[in-house]
Amino acid sequence: MSMSAMTTNGTPGSAPAGLLSHEWIERAQRRLARHVLRTPVVRSDDLDRLAGARLWLKAENLQRGGSFKLRGALLAVGELRDRGSSGVAAHSTGNHAIAVALAAREYGLPAILVLPGDVLPAKAARVREAGAEVLIVGTGLAERTAAVDEVALTRGFDVVDPYQNPFVVAGQGTATAELLTQVHSAGGRLDALVLPVGGGSAVAGACLVAARHGVAVVAAEPAAVPALTAALAAGEPVTVPGLPTVADGLRPDRIGRLPFDVVRSALHEVIQVDEAGIVAGMRMALDAARLVVEPAAACGLAAAVQFAAAGQARDIGVLLTGGNVDLNLISTILAEA
Amino acid sequence: MSMSAMTTNGTPGSAPAGLLSHEWIERAQRRLARHVLRTPVVRSDDLDRLAGARLWLKAENLQRGGSFKLRGALLAVGELRDRGSSGVAAHSTGNHAIAVALAAREYGLPAILVLPGDVLPAKAARVREAGAEVLIVGTGLAERTAAVDEVALTRGFDVVDPYQNPFVVAGQGTATAELLTQVHSAGGRLDALVLPVGGGSAVAGACLVAARHGVAVVAAEPAAVPALTAALAAGEPVTVPGLPTVADGLRPDRIGRLPFDVVRSALHEVIQVDEAGIVAGMRMALDAARLVVEPAAACGLAAAVQFAAAGQARDIGVLLTGGNVDLNLISTILAEA
Repeated sequence: MSMSAMTTNGTPGSAPAGLLSHEWIERAQRRLARHVLRTPVVRSDDLDRLAGARLWLKAENLQRGGSFKLRGALLAVGELRDRGSSGVAAHSTGNHAIAVALAAREYGLPAILVLPGDVLPAKAARVREAGAEVLIVGTGLAERTAAVDEVALTRGFDVVDPYQNPFVVAGQGTATAELLTQVHSAGGRLDALVLPVGGGSAVAGACLVAARHGVAVVAAEPAAVPALTAALAAGEPVTVPGLPTVADGLRPDRIGRLPFDVVRSALHEVIQVDEAGIVAGMRMALDAARLVVEPAAACGLAAAVQFAAAGQARDIGVLLTGGNVDLNLISTILAEA
Repeated sequence: MSMSAMTTNGTPGSAPAGLLSHEWIERAQRRLARHVLRTPVVRSDDLDRLAGARLWLKAENLQRGGSFKLRGALLAVGELRDRGSSGVAAHSTGNHAIAVALAAREYGLPAILVLPGDVLPAKAARVREAGAEVLIVGTGLAERTAAVDEVALTRGFDVVDPYQNPFVVAGQGTATAELLTQVHSAGGRLDALVLPVGGGSAVAGACLVAARHGVAVVAAEPAAVPALTAALAAGEPVTVPGLPTVADGLRPDRIGRLPFDVVRSALHEVIQVDEAGIVAGMRMALDAARLVVEPAAACGLAAAVQFAAAGQARDIGVLLTGGNVDLNLISTILAEA
C-alpha cells in the first residue's frame, strides 16, 4: 500500500497506517454488524449450467439502500461522527450518495451529495428520501470532485470520497469477507471472485480480503469506459474518454489512486464487457437467478460467465453490487429482446 | 385432522396417523435439509414504509426449481422411493410438476406430469429439462386428476397429488417453519403470515406450523378464482367457476379436501386480490424488494400490504412461493404501467 495514497484520502486527520489490512476489514465487519444486512448468497442451477461452473452470488442488491456501498459509507461516516464532524459531503454516480445519505441520517449528521447530470432519477430520489441535500454538477468526475471540495470548504463539512477514503475501501471489503465466510459455511471454496470496477473501492476491498485466501480477483468494466485497463497499461490512473454506457454506476472515467495502488499488483484479470453483454447480464439475473440487479452488477455477472467459460475456476463468487435500477430500463431491455 | 382426508391421499399404503402434526414437520425439515436451499428472508425498508409494518419475505422464488413446491415433492417422492415405487405421476399447474420432476430425478424414478393446456411454457420446459414426460390435458382440475389416475393405472406409477398428499403438505410446511426460525434468529417475532392459496397445500402446511406459535395465517386468493372463500362458505370444498387470472399457479378451481380440513378452523382470514392488485404486487417485488416473483407470490405480497394497512400486525411474514415467470409477462406488465 502506498503511503502517498493514504495521505490523499478525504478523511480528516491521519488514517491509521495499517488501515488497509485484513485485520482492519475484520474490525470493520464487527463495527458494521448491527447496521448492514448479512445479504444472502444466491445459487441458481440454471445459472451454473449456463456458466459451466458453480456461481455464488452475493446479493448486495438486497442490501439496505440497494447496494454494497452502505458498508463503506457507514464505516467512514461513523468514524467522522466519532471525530466530531459537523456534516458530510460526497460526490457519486448514485449509490455512494444513497449510502452516505443513509449513513449520515443514521449518525445524525447533515449531508450534501454531488451527483452528475445524467444520474438515474431513481437514485437521486433515494438520496433525497434519506433527507440529504442534492447538488447536480456536470457529468465528469473532475467537476464533481471540485464541487465537493467547494462545499466542504464553505460549509465546513467532511468529504467522504467514494474511491480515495480508506474507511470506504475497508467497508466495501466486508462484502467480500462475508461472502467467503458464507461460501465456507456452505461447504464451498471460491477459486475466483468477479466484481465490477468503477472508481475501484469494491475491487480494492476485495483484493485486500481475497489475497489471504488464494482467491483470484477478476474485475469487470464496461468496454465503453475502460478506466482500469488504461490505468494498468499506463502504470497509473488516467482519465479515459468515456463513451455512453448503460452501467450508470461504472461511469467514473478514472480509477482512484488509492484503489489502484491496492489493485495493481493483486488483481488477476480485467474483463471488458460490451453494452450487449451488460444487458444480457441483467436478463440472466432476472431469468435464471430471479434477482433485479443494476447494470453495474450485471456487468460483473456477465464477466463471471465469460470467465467461467475459460474453464480456470470451478467455484466463482460474484458480487452483485447493487439493485438500484429504474423499472423503465428493465422494461426497455425486455422489450428490445 | 380428518381421517377421511388421510385415506383419500395419493400415497400408497397407509399414512401414519400423526403425519400432519408439528413433529412431522420437524422430521420433514431434517429429511429435506440436504436437498433444499435454506432460502433467505429478505427485508426491504421501502416495502416496510409502503406497508406500514415490518415485512419478512421468505424468498422461495430462489428455491431450487423456482418454488417452495420442491419441499413437498422431495418428501413425498423420497417416501415412495423408500417403499419401492417404480415411478411417479402428478397433475399440476406447473410448479408441483417441476418439483416432482426434480425430485424423481434426484431419487432415480421416472415421472409423468399432467399439465393444463394453458400452462406457462417456461414451466412446461422446466419439467422436460428435469427429464420427465409431459402430458397436456384440458384446463380444469377434474380433467387433470382423471388423466393422472389413468397414467397411474396403466403404468403402475404412484400418484403424488399436489393437494391431497400429507407428505406434500408436511413438506410445504417446512418453508413456514424455516421462516419462523429465521425471523427468530434475527430478533423478530411474527404476528401474521400471509401466503397465496391455490390447491391449499402451502396454507395447510403453514397452519400446522403457525398454530403453535400464535401466528395468524392469512390466505390470499385471486378474486377471479375464489375457491377457498367458496369452500369456507359452503363448509366443504366446492368447484368455483374460475375466471381468467394472471396467477397461473392459483388457477385450481377447487381446494383440496385434506388442506381444507386442516385450514378451515385454523385460518385467520382470506383476502381476495384482483388482477390489478396481483400485477401491482409483481411491480412492488421488482421495485422495492428487487426480487422476481411469479403472480401467485405477488398475490400474497399484495394481500400482505393490504393486511398491514388494517393495522393488526407489526411483523408480517410473506411466503414468496415462487419465481417461475416468463420474462415476457414482466415485460408486458412493465410496459402497461
